[in-house]
Amino acid sequence: MPNDLTRVAVLGASGYAGGELVRLIDGHPEMELVYIGAHSKVGQHLGMVHPNLGGGDRILGTLNPSDVPDVDVVFFALPHGASATPALELLDRGALLVDLGSDFRIADPQRYTAAYGAEHPAPEQLGQWVYGLPELNRKQLPGANRIAVPGCYPTSALLALGPLVAQGLVDTKGIIVDALSGVSGAGRSVKADLQFGAISDSAHAYNLVYHRHRPEIEQGLEMVGGVDPVVTFTPHLVPMHRGLLTTAYAATEATEQQLQETLVSAYSDSPFVTVIDEPPATRWVAGSNNALVTARVDQRAGRAVIVSAIDNLLKGAAGQAVQCVNIALGWDETTGLPLTGAMP
Amino acid sequence: MPNDLTRVAVLGASGYAGGELVRLIDGHPEMELVYIGAHSKVGQHLGMVHPNLGGGDRILGTLNPSDVPDVDVVFFALPHGASATPALELLDRGALLVDLGSDFRIADPQRYTAAYGAEHPAPEQLGQWVYGLPELNRKQLPGANRIAVPGCYPTSALLALGPLVAQGLVDTKGIIVDALSGVSGAGRSVKADLQFGAISDSAHAYNLVYHRHRPEIEQGLEMVGGVDPVVTFTPHLVPMHRGLLTTAYAATEATEQQLQETLVSAYSDSPFVTVIDEPPATRWVAGSNNALVTARVDQRAGRAVIVSAIDNLLKGAAGQAVQCVNIALGWDETTGLPLTGAMP
Amino acid sequence: MPNDLTRVAVLGASGYAGGELVRLIDGHPEMELVYIGAHSKVGQHLGMVHPNLGGGDRILGTLNPSDVPDVDVVFFALPHGASATPALELLDRGALLVDLGSDFRIADPQRYTAAYGAEHPAPEQLGQWVYGLPELNRKQLPGANRIAVPGCYPTSALLALGPLVAQGLVDTKGIIVDALSGVSGAGRSVKADLQFGAISDSAHAYNLVYHRHRPEIEQGLEMVGGVDPVVTFTPHLVPMHRGLLTTAYAATEATEQQLQETLVSAYSDSPFVTVIDEPPATRWVAGSNNALVTARVDQRAGRAVIVSAIDNLLKGAAGQAVQCVNIALGWDETTGLPLTGAMP
Amino acid sequence: MPNDLTRVAVLGASGYAGGELVRLIDGHPEMELVYIGAHSKVGQHLGMVHPNLGGGDRILGTLNPSDVPDVDVVFFALPHGASATPALELLDRGALLVDLGSDFRIADPQRYTAAYGAEHPAPEQLGQWVYGLPELNRKQLPGANRIAVPGCYPTSALLALGPLVAQGLVDTKGIIVDALSGVSGAGRSVKADLQFGAISDSAHAYNLVYHRHRPEIEQGLEMVGGVDPVVTFTPHLVPMHRGLLTTAYAATEATEQQLQETLVSAYSDSPFVTVIDEPPATRWVAGSNNALVTARVDQRAGRAVIVSAIDNLLKGAAGQAVQCVNIALGWDETTGLPLTGAMP
Repeated sequence: MPNDLTRVAVLGASGYAGGELVRLIDGHPEMELVYIGAHSKVGQHLGMVHPNLGGGDRILGTLNPSDVPDVDVVFFALPHGASATPALELLDRGALLVDLGSDFRIADPQRYTAAYGAEHPAPEQLGQWVYGLPELNRKQLPGANRIAVPGCYPTSALLALGPLVAQGLVDTKGIIVDALSGVSGAGRSVKADLQFGAISDSAHAYNLVYHRHRPEIEQGLEMVGGVDPVVTFTPHLVPMHRGLLTTAYAATEATEQQLQETLVSAYSDSPFVTVIDEPPATRWVAGSNNALVTARVDQRAGRAVIVSAIDNLLKGAAGQAVQCVNIALGWDETTGLPLTGAMP
Repeated sequence: MPNDLTRVAVLGASGYAGGELVRLIDGHPEMELVYIGAHSKVGQHLGMVHPNLGGGDRILGTLNPSDVPDVDVVFFALPHGASATPALELLDRGALLVDLGSDFRIADPQRYTAAYGAEHPAPEQLGQWVYGLPELNRKQLPGANRIAVPGCYPTSALLALGPLVAQGLVDTKGIIVDALSGVSGAGRSVKADLQFGAISDSAHAYNLVYHRHRPEIEQGLEMVGGVDPVVTFTPHLVPMHRGLLTTAYAATEATEQQLQETLVSAYSDSPFVTVIDEPPATRWVAGSNNALVTARVDQRAGRAVIVSAIDNLLKGAAGQAVQCVNIALGWDETTGLPLTGAMP
Repeated sequence: MPNDLTRVAVLGASGYAGGELVRLIDGHPEMELVYIGAHSKVGQHLGMVHPNLGGGDRILGTLNPSDVPDVDVVFFALPHGASATPALELLDRGALLVDLGSDFRIADPQRYTAAYGAEHPAPEQLGQWVYGLPELNRKQLPGANRIAVPGCYPTSALLALGPLVAQGLVDTKGIIVDALSGVSGAGRSVKADLQFGAISDSAHAYNLVYHRHRPEIEQGLEMVGGVDPVVTFTPHLVPMHRGLLTTAYAATEATEQQLQETLVSAYSDSPFVTVIDEPPATRWVAGSNNALVTARVDQRAGRAVIVSAIDNLLKGAAGQAVQCVNIALGWDETTGLPLTGAMP
Repeated sequence: MPNDLTRVAVLGASGYAGGELVRLIDGHPEMELVYIGAHSKVGQHLGMVHPNLGGGDRILGTLNPSDVPDVDVVFFALPHGASATPALELLDRGALLVDLGSDFRIADPQRYTAAYGAEHPAPEQLGQWVYGLPELNRKQLPGANRIAVPGCYPTSALLALGPLVAQGLVDTKGIIVDALSGVSGAGRSVKADLQFGAISDSAHAYNLVYHRHRPEIEQGLEMVGGVDPVVTFTPHLVPMHRGLLTTAYAATEATEQQLQETLVSAYSDSPFVTVIDEPPATRWVAGSNNALVTARVDQRAGRAVIVSAIDNLLKGAAGQAVQCVNIALGWDETTGLPLTGAMP
């Protein structure tokens, strides 16, 4: 390999998002994966943990920063709360740190505490990480050295609502975000309620009224200019591997045409977002880094209905992380990212 | 068999709801199925059309009323618009007519025309059929001779919202009904977008802003006392056979406890509705005639979030039809209906 | 309830087969469920463990025989090896003992040891339990006081092969049993390889060459008269909740017509087995106690191909257990058992 | 784009295999897709027919050879019988013709007629097309100008059995091939028995004793040196999008180690086939062009049990077609083909 490849480490390589990161990095022409770390599967072959990634002889190392060699980029794909400690230790290495978890997404310490029910271990870090949603925050990314990749639900909700809130076309009060997630969104932990017998052929709502992604969605709406947004958020789990479909509702006085044109205009330079005329199915974006968005207006009710679809593991996690790095390091935004998925 | 069994015909026995009707009637101690009619599968063995119903030697007849023998009850399980003609011809037979379709659900001719985009073929019949949602309209059922069984979406939405609207606890303006349906809700017609390859592992919204069940939901809210309700309704198709999960949103000043107590009180005499404390999964009611309901309040937003789950083919169609007949003919409401489903 | 109901206990009521037993017994006109015991969920409400079984106020007790009240029938629905100890303690109670597990299926101690890799804790019991496959062993069941219910794979394999082996129409050497099981067949234990993410949209073979059901299949073939049968058995897991499809292969010189007629004749008095002309799908029997069987002959190869389908939790477990009790206690064989399933 | 890209046409671009071809060619560094033709969707946008392939402005043309511009390679992804006519017309164009259908796979006219029940329209072509299974027939591919890509079932069966038959380690008489296919293997035609309601949560065998892939498997075994092979083949449909799992049985006197070593040796230069120690799951290869194979021996029965897994649309169709072209045109065999799939 040429010497000028960007050297990369992935901490949390045994989970679903971590596996997707490895797969994307392996196919990325500018990056070289030099370290993979995990929590509970240290010493195992990567190919045993992710049979889709094939054989090879790569072994999972620890999450201990002292085991991580000199690299240019470190991705963290760890459960909530697990990124902060190793990230802080790696700060002075000079590497670009990219957290797919939730530890550094919230900028305001009070909002963080309200959201997560605990004080942040390093509150001085909050607000120091660029919120990595390129379509709404692209200008902050070039040259960034700390990036907090948005959650899957906030990504889909903000892609649906962001440009409309930015243009003042919908009311920031009384927004409803009703979202359907594939099961991989719940992570790879082994749980009774994620067994095939509990999930297949069934749908359920969960975390009614309060889910920790709600404050992140509200922060994102503020980021684009929304004033004091109030969001009611209901996540649902439906029996599919990946995919995230958001149906968002907000009061509006605009016409459907205005909303659609606003979205088209906002995403005209975004290679991964397409505004379409019919409501999307998640399969249309599964396996790609794409997002599909469409807006309607229920005139009788004075309400906008916006639907977006993404692959929760790609545009909602690993793909978006790589997209952010592409921009941060000055590569083409689409480098190494799939623009088409496989169907069926 | 004893001579005093109630003689029953099912028109539309080849579809999913019709098949469930046959199965329920076969197991009903008071009914005897004496005629089964279908549109396109006339002359075929029932066991070929519904392999789950076993062998036997029953043959599908026509939908022609002149082929229907003297019976006490006629169930219509036909596509929209197909019930009216045979139902009108059978009116003077003196049989109890039970329509699982949408032809006689809407009482007001103008609302009907607005909903279905055409004038009703027998507008004088509108309002003459009892709306067969026992939990909210039980008193009208005893002795009824024409029953219009509600749609699956309206059933789940009205079970969630009805008692709260009746008590004035939620605002009838600005209600949102966001619902996830199993694929059997789309019927048994052979369509490209219902192939396994299009449905499995995917979720999508459809009929944004306008679906013909919306006016039926609004009529139902009026029926329980709601004034000028305005509903925004978004149906979704998710990859499961049966099940319907509704998440409804409405402005409220009530507390969660008030909402839950109101629901418990409203359904205290309803054997098929249970108010629970956690959000339901559709699998919990698949295969039974049960409904599960729970209400929450998002206090920051001043909004009630109510979730209900039913089996769209049972409580949302065939089971509810039999429940209505049980009440209409004076039998115990639960006669011949499953109170438990099979899992997994 | 009338005093003369047969009093029943279920030990292992928290698993899938145990849940189905409870559901069947609840709907059985001759049985009254008076005790439910479980291993790890003692003290929990049944309705929390099996949400499909509805509310009620039943609490799971222990598996300790001293906690089991006086009953007429005890069902054991426990993991391999867990039935023997409580069963032995309950032997002198005079109750009919029905084991859905594998502890008492093998009659020969040496075969048992070869199959399970350990000596049986009570070898004198082996051979004392009636092998509860009514269609092939019905005469042994009336008045039995100990019944070992066959495994799901042996049930489907023996229904396919039994009558043909009994009539000497297929060679008992070189039989191949290739079977596809729904995931509930793997039980309700929480395991990484039973998560939705590992199972859905995938198929795999497991336990190649050796699975403990193989000696049970061979014993069953001996039971019907086969001499020294040698079976190669390959189980597969496919992404469905329930259902078991067996494709069996055996050398034959008979014609297809002979095989089919032999099956029809063998099952003429068996209400749950139907011989059909086309290969069955598992959905056709899901939710019922039915089995479907069909035989073909590949004349070029001199080989019979026999396909059978059952619901692994009903005819393959709980349904067959109730069927055995019906016969043992002199009730109609179909009492309380579903002859039709729900579709889709 | 550089002028020296290889110009490619795909006839049959609206089906599942055709869609995968388009996706692979779009990502292939040496090919440029200049024409897409279809049967029933002429004039439609590719992005409407394959929403996963994104927008773009490509329109489906006809299958008429006169509409096909000058190209270097023509892929045919058409139903059985539909390739022959356009292929014959395109023969003298000098392009490399690659048929994913079954029209030119069988070399012997008598075997063709026996397999397909009709005479071939151009029997002089039979035997003139290279059978495009690189792992067993790689030497014939460089410079080939007509390639018949194997069927999905034969690909998986021959990868499992081919090297063992070639080395004389298994008996070619009495081979059994029992295979499980994902639903995409049945094509994209709209059929009642491919609806979600018929397929999901169910498994079934079909085409018992006779399926047209059987003679193709037998021809393949002859190709590697097997004498007069006799195969009994049973295909099954299981509820998954893609994937093909074959369990093959054959009499053997070899040891497990001999079989495994033979497979390892045979595939040592094949980048897409990996011999593993545990039975594979189809998900491990879904989305990649990989095949996984493992062999066991049932010593009691003197029988080899070999399991292979592929993605039926990639290694079983479009991926293999591109692999063949890579070899035929002298590019690296893996060019443009996925060596890892996405999971879950």
